[in-house]
Amino acid sequence: MTSASAKRRSPGRPAANDGGDSAGQRTRLLDAALARFVRDGMTATTARGIAEEAGVTPALLNYYFGGRDALQQAVVEERLMPVLRHVGAQLALAGDDPATLIASFTSAIGEAVAEYPWLPTLWLREVLLDGGALREVFLRHGADMLPRALAQRFVAAQKSGRLNPELDPRLLVVSLVGLTLFPAAAAPIWRQVFAADDIDMTSLQEHTWRLLHDGLRLEDAE
Amino acid sequence: MTSASAKRRSPGRPAANDGGDSAGQRTRLLDAALARFVRDGMTATTARGIAEEAGVTPALLNYYFGGRDALQQAVVEERLMPVLRHVGAQLALAGDDPATLIASFTSAIGEAVAEYPWLPTLWLREVLLDGGALREVFLRHGADMLPRALAQRFVAAQKSGRLNPELDPRLLVVSLVGLTLFPAAAAPIWRQVFAADDIDMTSLQEHTWRLLHDGLRLEDAE
Repeated sequence: MTSASAKRRSPGRPAANDGGDSAGQRTRLLDAALARFVRDGMTATTARGIAEEAGVTPALLNYYFGGRDALQQAVVEERLMPVLRHVGAQLALAGDDPATLIASFTSAIGEAVAEYPWLPTLWLREVLLDGGALREVFLRHGADMLPRALAQRFVAAQKSGRLNPELDPRLLVVSLVGLTLFPAAAAPIWRQVFAADDIDMTSLQEHTWRLLHDGLRLEDAE
Repeated sequence: MTSASAKRRSPGRPAANDGGDSAGQRTRLLDAALARFVRDGMTATTARGIAEEAGVTPALLNYYFGGRDALQQAVVEERLMPVLRHVGAQLALAGDDPATLIASFTSAIGEAVAEYPWLPTLWLREVLLDGGALREVFLRHGADMLPRALAQRFVAAQKSGRLNPELDPRLLVVSLVGLTLFPAAAAPIWRQVFAADDIDMTSLQEHTWRLLHDGLRLEDAE
């Protein structure tokens, strides 16, 4: 397909003679964009780089998405937001018991990281780092559904005496992220530091749950 | 001072007529490099950008450091490594009791972050992120002194029955980083998510200590 023929057709309606692979090409462009976003960062990734990664022409990218920024928007809507919404739905299903809620959170993050290995890096670079391209997206579309919803339910659990009242319910959300998504993002380093190839994500979740449930149990010495 | 006069003098021996401010200029270049490293990332920071930030000519940068890479090396040796060594020394002083050791770790990180606000961002971007410019430096010069030393002492504390034996001593180091340095790095986000200007670093440390010491105390409900 040439750039000229792309311009003649309206977006979203690829002709049947596009090799019969238009859905595949669109998906391949989303995958390629995600791969470059993770490798080089969103701001540094150009339309040309994405097209190159996908093995197509920049004109085809424009044909499917109208441009690089719209493609980035599509990656957010079709790849990132479904993951956040899925985690949010699992938390909603968990009910009010804080033990079930927190166990659901740690396993939802564990599963998301296992299924979408790009998630921790994207979160580190584009949400956590100052100037990250997804921070506003997260604040606008993720904050109510995840951190704020969790903190509210921790407040309720403390009121009903089912959660340590000495914890700050907002900081507990931060602690939980620091015990789940952060270790996933840092895995390449701690695996190297500790030669820890024996630790899989199940043992990480088990360790985290023991720490959250029982604490350090320092008093055993007394 | 002109670039020509810089070339005639040997590095490290600025003439007395350099405005009497040669130590100040050298320090200003280190500060400027650090500021740009934090703002733009180490790889993206050029000699010209650092000189501009410091308000000096690139020739002066070359005069004091011999070049951009040697300046980066000086930032690592004179700014980053002293912080890591100071944290390591505080841990060494803490002795073998795991309660004291872990309290020392959380307060050492808290103090380092308060005194060196550039630390969390540099750690996030240059150590944690794949391709970060400081990951090798950390693995070579920080890993023995900090994470491996801590994990070894946790193993010993578990053997003497003074620390929850169900925790993985290596993952406990990861957990502690996720409960101290990570919340510091993520503070701009959770402050915004939770409108949490009332939480200072002391209340963060208090929350973290309660969580580590007592866990979630979910069983209160029973």
